[in-house]
Amino acid sequence: MDELRERLAEIADLDRVSMLLAWDQEVCMPPAGGEARGEMRATVGRLAHERFTDEHVGELLAAAAPRDPLEADIVRVARRDYDKAVRVPGELVAEMARAGVAARGAWMQAREANDFAPFAPYLEHNIELRRRYSACFPEAEHPYDPLLDDYEPGMSTAEVRDALLHLREGLVPLVASAPEIDDALLRVGPFPEAGQRALLGVVLRAIGVDEEQWRIDEATHPFEATIAKTDMRLTTRYDEADMDSLYSSLHEFGHGLYEHQVDPALERTPLDGGASSAWHESQSRLWENMVGRSGGFWRWCLPHAQAALPERFGAVTWQEVQRAANAVRPSYIRVSADEVTYGLHIALRFELELALIEGDLAVADLPAAWNERMQSYLGLDVPDDVHGVLQDIHWAEGAFGYFPTYAVGNVIAGQVWARVTAELPDLDDRFAAGEFAPLREWLAENVHRFGRRHLTTEMLERVVGGGLDPAPYLAYLEAKIDASAQLMS
Amino acid sequence: MDELRERLAEIADLDRVSMLLAWDQEVCMPPAGGEARGEMRATVGRLAHERFTDEHVGELLAAAAPRDPLEADIVRVARRDYDKAVRVPGELVAEMARAGVAARGAWMQAREANDFAPFAPYLEHNIELRRRYSACFPEAEHPYDPLLDDYEPGMSTAEVRDALLHLREGLVPLVASAPEIDDALLRVGPFPEAGQRALLGVVLRAIGVDEEQWRIDEATHPFEATIAKTDMRLTTRYDEADMDSLYSSLHEFGHGLYEHQVDPALERTPLDGGASSAWHESQSRLWENMVGRSGGFWRWCLPHAQAALPERFGAVTWQEVQRAANAVRPSYIRVSADEVTYGLHIALRFELELALIEGDLAVADLPAAWNERMQSYLGLDVPDDVHGVLQDIHWAEGAFGYFPTYAVGNVIAGQVWARVTAELPDLDDRFAAGEFAPLREWLAENVHRFGRRHLTTEMLERVVGGGLDPAPYLAYLEAKIDASAQLMS
Repeated sequence: MDELRERLAEIADLDRVSMLLAWDQEVCMPPAGGEARGEMRATVGRLAHERFTDEHVGELLAAAAPRDPLEADIVRVARRDYDKAVRVPGELVAEMARAGVAARGAWMQAREANDFAPFAPYLEHNIELRRRYSACFPEAEHPYDPLLDDYEPGMSTAEVRDALLHLREGLVPLVASAPEIDDALLRVGPFPEAGQRALLGVVLRAIGVDEEQWRIDEATHPFEATIAKTDMRLTTRYDEADMDSLYSSLHEFGHGLYEHQVDPALERTPLDGGASSAWHESQSRLWENMVGRSGGFWRWCLPHAQAALPERFGAVTWQEVQRAANAVRPSYIRVSADEVTYGLHIALRFELELALIEGDLAVADLPAAWNERMQSYLGLDVPDDVHGVLQDIHWAEGAFGYFPTYAVGNVIAGQVWARVTAELPDLDDRFAAGEFAPLREWLAENVHRFGRRHLTTEMLERVVGGGLDPAPYLAYLEAKIDASAQLMS
Repeated sequence: MDELRERLAEIADLDRVSMLLAWDQEVCMPPAGGEARGEMRATVGRLAHERFTDEHVGELLAAAAPRDPLEADIVRVARRDYDKAVRVPGELVAEMARAGVAARGAWMQAREANDFAPFAPYLEHNIELRRRYSACFPEAEHPYDPLLDDYEPGMSTAEVRDALLHLREGLVPLVASAPEIDDALLRVGPFPEAGQRALLGVVLRAIGVDEEQWRIDEATHPFEATIAKTDMRLTTRYDEADMDSLYSSLHEFGHGLYEHQVDPALERTPLDGGASSAWHESQSRLWENMVGRSGGFWRWCLPHAQAALPERFGAVTWQEVQRAANAVRPSYIRVSADEVTYGLHIALRFELELALIEGDLAVADLPAAWNERMQSYLGLDVPDDVHGVLQDIHWAEGAFGYFPTYAVGNVIAGQVWARVTAELPDLDDRFAAGEFAPLREWLAENVHRFGRRHLTTEMLERVVGGGLDPAPYLAYLEAKIDASAQLMS
């Protein structure tokens, strides 16, 4: 058991090193350093994989005698990871990686040309490889299950399909009923960068970022990197045309706080980190949306926004800002979609990638299927592929099974939020007083501390006492739309 | 051969990763991240060591069939490194590391208390372990040889002893004859930080730092980190009380340029990097002293210094600055010593550590022996241990064999400089015109490109056609002192 733990700690260290190599590449590395960095990352990734899938680890797992519940969980989770990892031939893993790199290049060229057709054969190859990947798990009920399982351990395609269908059916009428709101307050700049920085400093300190354990940098595509629980790194991007630096920082903080508050006893074990992609996303969306677009948040934040950006916020009320922060407006691009339409962008992608994997949709028919759904769900006519099927990198990289986790994350955030607000009914007033510790502590106790000890659905059972259910999330959105409509009337 | 090269490339990658972990720890890491970082660094270091000292590497080396001169050098140098590494039991390596950590803590406490005595048993243990280390190489002629060889491959204790004796005998009268110079121009601030930054930007760009491949940051103790030839990182420290940021940056640039200009074909092989510690130091000192304290450099630099720091340099001549930059003044502390007295600080340390390893000096007698030599070489009465025997961390960390490389580096810099200036007689005028490329290119062609292909003395033979010889360095210093004396009369 000690030898097993030592080996798993070594692999955890290598994973942290990989994370730092990636962080540094985005934040610090001189532009010419990319090629050497690729070699460093490949070497560390390959070593971590080799050291984990080594036969000796299988023997250690078979012989392991856990001495307490923590060690029992370590063995169980490590065995699950190990069994998955050794089932896939190294040759297939390498071919998926190579095909992903080639498809990524083809995708970028296709975007340049605004033409899906030359990308199609690369996408077909990626799909073919994912089918072969799925075939490594013949016991799976559905060929999409093993793909989904990489992001949502233990969750079935059927569960996700039901939930996302329910979500979609709820969202379409909500979007149609949402009042038109002028959100220029947060969307039409200039918002001077110095003011954004000053405001962000105040907000992050208030919600729980301290300089002893966190740092904040700039990156083209904001992300969060946990190097260690005591070495947390957020990145953001300042664009004077909007206030996205605030919302993307709240989002990345949500990811970071989750990992920061995992039980320290799990550090350097396979139990460290978030339970799943959707659980992770639930935490980032909870801070970005449930907190950052709440009335309480803006009652507290507005004076700070006025001090930092007086020319933009000097003459407005918190109600006006909150309304702007909750504007609903159908648009083509997922990453800039509002909270309500976002779920429809995801439902569309999930339905399409499921059909691609099932073989019910040919790649050649994908753009038309995309555009048809955009019209049906959001009432929009897609003008070209760059504003449609070519907008995301996920399929080019072969990341099938990832898209649904965004929507499942929102659904889980809704379920968690319903329970938080039931248990802490004065939360909005606490936010208004700049007090975010009660929420942080509730999340630590009820969600974060468990790390990867439980599967996605086990966590749901534990936190909200049931399965995946879009109803609370839809109710939360509906209440906000009603409130906006009332404020306007 | 291909498998060997692949394994060696993997180890080279891990070494680059270790360097990045160290750089990040000094430059970026939040203060609380230290403990986790220690684990990450230990894991990567252990893996690199294990993967290199693996029996399989021994077999690959034995079976290797080099296909060209480059591969012949790779095999030869890797075999030398391998034979050294496998001769030392892992247990002894671990004990040296543990003893170093303990001694470092004791050293810090002893400094706080300004009392050598409580540090003595830790130092004794370090020395005892180094003797055991030496005993792993019974063929060595002198017990100090294996220690020195870790920094100066192939160089003997006898060679270094002769050279440093010659150097000391030359320096003592030089120091005594040096005129007293007012160096307030570079030593009495304030030099506003913004001005220092601006000047440094101009100087580094001129000597060869571009933003595509280099970055510059701040660190408490300036250092250089090569992550890759295309990812070079310098650090410096701004103190408004002096202009050390300029000289320490020239120094670190010298280290960086050496690694930057190694033949790209050697990347990811054991031949990458500098030939030895002394060769490395020769390059850093060459840029810091031979370039940075030259008349040509200040003829070019003064207008830039005047623009960046008008209140300090507005009303002076380049001759005055150059004279201040070459002031000689005996002092207690090595790291702030001038170029001329520096060698005596090193001679003293080398003589003492040699006697400690030989067993001719007891640790209890070390402070007295130190103080006696300070009086004899520099004419100074050491007031207390913090200004004497406790000032450096090297012995606490067990780094015996390192000190002489500083002086050997200066001696080599003198030999290289004599050849450079013979071959490029207009170098000083080129500096005055802001042209540093001729020097860079000469160094690339004659020194840098070889990397670790040759041992310390083989490199000397190749570059200056002879052995280690302090005469050119002493002549260079004497000429500068004469020039200063003439300027004053």
